[in-house]
Amino acid sequence: MTETKNAFYAQSGGVTAVINASACAVIETARRHPDRIANVYAGRDGIIGALTEDLIDTGREPAAAIAALRHTPSGAFGSCRYKLKGLEQNRAEYERLVEVFKAHDIGYFFYNGGGDSADTCHKVAQLSQQWGFPIQAIHIPKTVDNDLPVTDNCPGFGSVAKYIAVSVREASYDVLAMARTSTKVFVIEVMGRHAGWIAAAGGLAADEDNDIPVVILFPEIPFEQDRFIARVQDCVARYGYCCVVVSEGARTADGRFLAEQGTRDAFGHAQLGGVAPVVANLLKQGLGYKYHWAVADYLQRAARHLASQTDVEQAYALGQAAVELALAGHSAIMPTIVRTSDSPYRWEIGRADLAQVANTEKFMPRDYISADGFGITPACRNYLQPLIRGEDYPPYRDGLPDYVRLQNVPVTKKLANGFELP
Amino acid sequence: MTETKNAFYAQSGGVTAVINASACAVIETARRHPDRIANVYAGRDGIIGALTEDLIDTGREPAAAIAALRHTPSGAFGSCRYKLKGLEQNRAEYERLVEVFKAHDIGYFFYNGGGDSADTCHKVAQLSQQWGFPIQAIHIPKTVDNDLPVTDNCPGFGSVAKYIAVSVREASYDVLAMARTSTKVFVIEVMGRHAGWIAAAGGLAADEDNDIPVVILFPEIPFEQDRFIARVQDCVARYGYCCVVVSEGARTADGRFLAEQGTRDAFGHAQLGGVAPVVANLLKQGLGYKYHWAVADYLQRAARHLASQTDVEQAYALGQAAVELALAGHSAIMPTIVRTSDSPYRWEIGRADLAQVANTEKFMPRDYISADGFGITPACRNYLQPLIRGEDYPPYRDGLPDYVRLQNVPVTKKLANGFELP
Repeated sequence: MTETKNAFYAQSGGVTAVINASACAVIETARRHPDRIANVYAGRDGIIGALTEDLIDTGREPAAAIAALRHTPSGAFGSCRYKLKGLEQNRAEYERLVEVFKAHDIGYFFYNGGGDSADTCHKVAQLSQQWGFPIQAIHIPKTVDNDLPVTDNCPGFGSVAKYIAVSVREASYDVLAMARTSTKVFVIEVMGRHAGWIAAAGGLAADEDNDIPVVILFPEIPFEQDRFIARVQDCVARYGYCCVVVSEGARTADGRFLAEQGTRDAFGHAQLGGVAPVVANLLKQGLGYKYHWAVADYLQRAARHLASQTDVEQAYALGQAAVELALAGHSAIMPTIVRTSDSPYRWEIGRADLAQVANTEKFMPRDYISADGFGITPACRNYLQPLIRGEDYPPYRDGLPDYVRLQNVPVTKKLANGFELP
Repeated sequence: MTETKNAFYAQSGGVTAVINASACAVIETARRHPDRIANVYAGRDGIIGALTEDLIDTGREPAAAIAALRHTPSGAFGSCRYKLKGLEQNRAEYERLVEVFKAHDIGYFFYNGGGDSADTCHKVAQLSQQWGFPIQAIHIPKTVDNDLPVTDNCPGFGSVAKYIAVSVREASYDVLAMARTSTKVFVIEVMGRHAGWIAAAGGLAADEDNDIPVVILFPEIPFEQDRFIARVQDCVARYGYCCVVVSEGARTADGRFLAEQGTRDAFGHAQLGGVAPVVANLLKQGLGYKYHWAVADYLQRAARHLASQTDVEQAYALGQAAVELALAGHSAIMPTIVRTSDSPYRWEIGRADLAQVANTEKFMPRDYISADGFGITPACRNYLQPLIRGEDYPPYRDGLPDYVRLQNVPVTKKLANGFELP
């Protein structure tokens, strides 16, 4: 005999264009099983909502609002950058989570995030068991950085990749048209501090019909100034212009980030952030070219208007699978994307043990980066291409995407004691 | 009796998401009148192509390629930043233009650009008449800055405005979700060095359903640091976060651009460009908030993937009207957009004498900017809103927009002498 329990869902870390599609799937799938899942409570601002007993009753949202999550970027319930410490350092946090889950009869814990949240999810599954209140904890992958192991790719990445590939293509058309008398080099800075997956997507801008000279600076390849300048000079000589895609994590062999060049403002304060202007200045000093630079920053990960259809479908499928796996009795696992064919692209849902996932980062394989370190290989293209495929436009009203804002009605608190965040 | 002549078409200044839609209209309309217009020759890299007799035979392009210009951003024939000097300073340039036009039997001159090119177009019309080789010179408006007079708005602007409005909305959703533990202020830098039209579009991100706190820094309103910091602090206190849209032309009362704060890199070189990081640093120093910043740069004007349908339709209509006006015998004029109704939005094609257009800039009316100088008024919203309306998506192939590259086959030169650009 199976019991009816409540489910807890939380979003963790940087939000994406499609994390709400996973939330949509969790809630819609749970609603199809009222005999097993009575309510889905979401954490307000992620796991902080669980620690402070600040839960959102998703049952108060009409079906249309939940459906609209599928086309709404960002985290509808709020997310946070809050990593639970290790058990030795802060046992109180885990105890508090279990206390809140007990009070609200939570039997399912769905945690939607990256590597850190996979670790938290894993610990909750283990500890709740030990402490006599078993919770089925399922992790739903999400990260624009695409750096989770086991799964072929991570929801959120495909849409960022599409945004960067499209933006580089569009900017390249612009620069080409003007290069004779104006800008010759365009530099765009992209996310991905540790892994170059997003930077690699810039390489997709060029294909057999679009002979676009793209030079990529990966975090995986130590930056060598002279080689870089020579490469850009060569592109300008051959094509008349050059597009540079630089990862925010680009660094020299001694590990120093290019973004931290010791630039100072007029008051002597360190100038924070922005590797694009640093690279543009290097080129200006080295070659004298007129340049322009862009920093896409949050625009790239929030750009639901240009989401990849593959990405949206996978984000939804993983949320749905998480609930179905929980209902089938699983815990301490993460549903994954398994690629079964490159061409035609085919994928299915698999699963990974959270012990394999937690705290492991997946970097770009060296054979995805061209020998000279400035481009992507055909193997990389085969990997990336299906992930940006298909368009999944949101509805528009008066020229703007019609994104939903939920009411986010709080669940009545049941615990007398609060919880002080450290 | 009417003669058959060739037409010359050139793109001038910064390219846009829709200038090729005007080119498409010019060529398609000309092709429907082979009895009057034999060939459309395009200037390679704009007016430079005319001066150097480097003409492109658009007749070599199949109809499908010309049709694809409608959904392709940038300038398909190349553009340039090259302003013809006054007649007194460089009579040779004008003489050369007329010489090339004579050699290729050009009877129609279509110049697609901003204020400077309207001036050139006007002079060509006058001089060719004086010099005994009358050319009908028609200017087709184009500028993302929206600063041409007479016309209600300029093609190119509506799509940039849509891009900025959508991007600010998307980034705001992102920041709101994270603000409790992470970024509280997001700063986005937008184009428009002299006029705040593009910055104003950031204000459209907020509407009755989206209570987004947007603070705009217009070039028209002198920057006051203390008032600005207080305004942002107030937004963060009330909403938990704030979005700042800063024009690249934002400046203090003494005319100093914020972007030129005298920042220096490690070598003491002036750090060029980027008002967004300057503003973000001011807020960091003044309020201590965690911030992020973006610089959209060329992405905003090249973003054909997010073009406004109104903008595409108007760009096409103006190109078509230019040819029809020429065939009806007009010269030294510019077709314009005349707004006949706000709600429902209705517009028609009008015309302006180039003497009224050349070298006149249209700034934001003060009553389009809120009293405190940081937002837009309902009048501004009524003006802007129809211009971003409607989506006009390009076709996609393998996840990327399928933009056309023309062959750009050169016309055989007829002149023995070349022309040395100054």
